[in-house]
Amino acid sequence: MAQVEVKAPEKKVRMKRSMIDCDVHHLAPVSAVKDHLPRFYRDQIDLWGWRLPGPIYLNGGVQGLTVDSTPPDGTNPLGGRGDLEYLRSQHLDPFNVEYGILTGSDYSFQASPDPDYAAAICSALNDYTIEHWTSKDKRLKASLFIAKQDPLLAAKEIDRIGSHPDMVQVIVANGAEKPYGNRFYHPIYEACVRHNLPFNIHVLTEGLGINTGPTGAGYVTYYPEYRAARPQVMMAHLASFIFEGVFEKFPTLKVVLQEAGAFWIAPFLWKLDSDWKSLRFQTPWVKKAPSEYFRSNVRVTSQPIEMPPSTELFQQMMKAIYADECLMFCSDFPHWDFDSPLLTFPKLDDALWERIFYQNAADLYELPARRSDQGGAEG
Amino acid sequence: MAQVEVKAPEKKVRMKRSMIDCDVHHLAPVSAVKDHLPRFYRDQIDLWGWRLPGPIYLNGGVQGLTVDSTPPDGTNPLGGRGDLEYLRSQHLDPFNVEYGILTGSDYSFQASPDPDYAAAICSALNDYTIEHWTSKDKRLKASLFIAKQDPLLAAKEIDRIGSHPDMVQVIVANGAEKPYGNRFYHPIYEACVRHNLPFNIHVLTEGLGINTGPTGAGYVTYYPEYRAARPQVMMAHLASFIFEGVFEKFPTLKVVLQEAGAFWIAPFLWKLDSDWKSLRFQTPWVKKAPSEYFRSNVRVTSQPIEMPPSTELFQQMMKAIYADECLMFCSDFPHWDFDSPLLTFPKLDDALWERIFYQNAADLYELPARRSDQGGAEG
Repeated sequence: MAQVEVKAPEKKVRMKRSMIDCDVHHLAPVSAVKDHLPRFYRDQIDLWGWRLPGPIYLNGGVQGLTVDSTPPDGTNPLGGRGDLEYLRSQHLDPFNVEYGILTGSDYSFQASPDPDYAAAICSALNDYTIEHWTSKDKRLKASLFIAKQDPLLAAKEIDRIGSHPDMVQVIVANGAEKPYGNRFYHPIYEACVRHNLPFNIHVLTEGLGINTGPTGAGYVTYYPEYRAARPQVMMAHLASFIFEGVFEKFPTLKVVLQEAGAFWIAPFLWKLDSDWKSLRFQTPWVKKAPSEYFRSNVRVTSQPIEMPPSTELFQQMMKAIYADECLMFCSDFPHWDFDSPLLTFPKLDDALWERIFYQNAADLYELPARRSDQGGAEG
Repeated sequence: MAQVEVKAPEKKVRMKRSMIDCDVHHLAPVSAVKDHLPRFYRDQIDLWGWRLPGPIYLNGGVQGLTVDSTPPDGTNPLGGRGDLEYLRSQHLDPFNVEYGILTGSDYSFQASPDPDYAAAICSALNDYTIEHWTSKDKRLKASLFIAKQDPLLAAKEIDRIGSHPDMVQVIVANGAEKPYGNRFYHPIYEACVRHNLPFNIHVLTEGLGINTGPTGAGYVTYYPEYRAARPQVMMAHLASFIFEGVFEKFPTLKVVLQEAGAFWIAPFLWKLDSDWKSLRFQTPWVKKAPSEYFRSNVRVTSQPIEMPPSTELFQQMMKAIYADECLMFCSDFPHWDFDSPLLTFPKLDDALWERIFYQNAADLYELPARRSDQGGAEG
């Protein structure tokens, strides 16, 4: 790779009130965890390489990242998320992040045809993240990777490490073989409920490896189309959870929809509610309106939020997606389309700011109140 | 099939101001056109049956239809759309339909692996519709079916019959092998532009036959999920048209999105516009913001429109989808989720009613002004 010359601007900001960032990417490539894998896979990797599906579409920014995620020496454009010190100085400190939920950087193994291999990588990765990240900064919490190709193996990994205090959710890529409400996946939700862990669906790997094509009309051509496809896939998962009755079977399960935007949820719920009213005799196990399940069982992170053309419409859309209950701020640090907590939203009233930037996430992940209150909100 | 006893209520209504209905299903099953097929296919059908992919999900209503689409004798639940007299008395007359755009009832041949067979059925069907429907009532206009499996064959059919005055658009099912902006389909758009015919994408056949699975996460389980998948597929097509540069290559091409709802378009365009702003260097042939292409080149029919929780939000959403320029009323007669022109919308101001219920469709399909003005609007 040609060296990219980039300079990180000085961060002058220091947010007054602390917040929870629900999507902080740390560099957790499978290459970093090779030594933690069983001998069998290390030998295979030496002989055949990693055999993991890689990206086929462009991305944005510099290798997908913001310029200022790169350490000032410019030698390593991927450095920002690989370096805890840099994460602290560029993100956690200036933006006064009380808790940052680490979401890793590589989900390709979840699209591998080999579930045993994927499970081995997940275990190594989960151990690596605790050892090298969360144990070194109490602000960091981790997402538990599973081999979703094999829900029973996935449940085994949740049982192995899911009660560790630094593990706050189970995470899967949006790309899938089947919509996530399908009964195939229910052993995962049994394990999530056993360990009181939310199930996070994070965009990535749509159309890669063993996953189905990224849209209901097959493969797209360009990256903006691919980005447009991600909320479509998330819609399929959300409808699936509701109409398969997952939230009746697992009433305490919480599902997090991450990095697919937020405002599409409003017209989507209007449609689901309306269809449920006229068709509920076909799915009698769906006892409540879809929007009620959404409010009780689903949470959404903000980035990259769509921006309505007027503040008035923005406020109405926030109500329509139940933002005060369901929306949680996240930055997607250090990706090129990072949302700054200072710039993402129009002015929010104080109570709503507090729900979105702290309390909704604190409630979901059972995180304590702020260590100290540092004054008024910026937002 | 067990006989279903249904009674059609008396229609008392007679709308004062006439309107254009952009989605009137007439019974146009392939079985009705067998005699019009070449001998080769008639022989094959006698030996092997029709070999066309059929529905795998439930539908709503009675065989998918409204109760009052059934003639009073109750003998033929499918009668409403198979009987021109009944269509007149139950729909065209009471709702004062100045023009009704016929959209057929069976699109399965567009998901057949055999493009020659599909093309033969299309030709027979197009001839049948002119002979048995549009030539018998000047209010009826027709949609031209094509074998989209083979865009060159499709263009040939458009050239054969596309200049007939009763043919007002080319129609395809939403289910597809590739998103419709893909260059594979461009010969179809050349032919549409040659004959000044809009390209209508009507929901149906998602996930059937040779089409890809109905979502970006594969097959769904239940019918409400399947309905939720349809706008997702439409989103994939819309993003594809824009980012593949179809509207730069064919600036006069108009695309109609039918029966996938309408308000999802607002947050979807916010997302596309925002991504275009930051990523336009990747697709330099996309010269305008996606919402500008939407306004100039895309039209949307109303049914089944999502219903926001307040009139205020409804009005803002109407603005956000450019309803005054882009939205066209349709009823989906005689399907169970039929939208009555009297009940579909909250009170609209007169000018907007006129755009949605008449002028936008008249402009698109180049239909003349009302034969006589019959007074004020109901809507």
